[in-house]
Amino acid sequence: MFEIDHLGIAVKSLAQARTFYQNLGMKVMPEETVAQEKVRLAMVPVGDSRIELLEPLSEDSPIAKFLAKRGEGLHHVSLRVDNLQGTVENLKKSGVRLINDQIQVGAGGHLYVFVHPSSAGGVLLELCEERPKGV
Amino acid sequence: MFEIDHLGIAVKSLAQARTFYQNLGMKVMPEETVAQEKVRLAMVPVGDSRIELLEPLSEDSPIAKFLAKRGEGLHHVSLRVDNLQGTVENLKKSGVRLINDQIQVGAGGHLYVFVHPSSAGGVLLELCEERPKGV
Repeated sequence: MFEIDHLGIAVKSLAQARTFYQNLGMKVMPEETVAQEKVRLAMVPVGDSRIELLEPLSEDSPIAKFLAKRGEGLHHVSLRVDNLQGTVENLKKSGVRLINDQIQVGAGGHLYVFVHPSSAGGVLLELCEERPKGV
Repeated sequence: MFEIDHLGIAVKSLAQARTFYQNLGMKVMPEETVAQEKVRLAMVPVGDSRIELLEPLSEDSPIAKFLAKRGEGLHHVSLRVDNLQGTVENLKKSGVRLINDQIQVGAGGHLYVFVHPSSAGGVLLELCEERPKGV
């Protein structure tokens, strides 16, 4: 089973992006800071998915580097999968390039890896699995 | 109510993109040709959404121009809305820039407009509404 977990969008101004999605009639969640990634973000729920608006906190944030190189736009697509370990093993067997070879653990305990854009049609593709229930 | 209808991804090789998503364990639908847009496409269902893989049919296809300028990657995000007419009126009042001022009718009868990336955080954002049932 696959779901679009979220679309990460790099923006220069979170305030301006919030206003756009609010004008569209969508609810924008309160802003959060993720110090580790040097970003401020706001989530916009869309059905079972979310749009993640990302504004850099400093010049050396990965999002600041992306904005400098590509300008505002989609930074990554995150797909939720059921069996991340098995999925990653299959991809490695097929020669798919991952950003990190090992599965990472996120702040909330969820698991994730990033597939390099060169293997995924130019898209930085995150694969994630929610933290197993009860763990 | 909002849903992510699909993510349009511009690729140089539909065959290579198909293989990647199949290796991920996803089902890729049969290819279709949309002569009007000069593209060949394949849909990858993801939950209630779809990834739309787009390969240009000719050099003057909008997707060919995108590939030449930006390389492979996300071309547009399409959000399904309940009331496209009302949504568009609200956006116009807020000064949001649309690609076409009028709502367009797609091949399958669905309605759509595109918001210019300059108004939507660098993302070419399609807003669509399914054809009213029974019409």
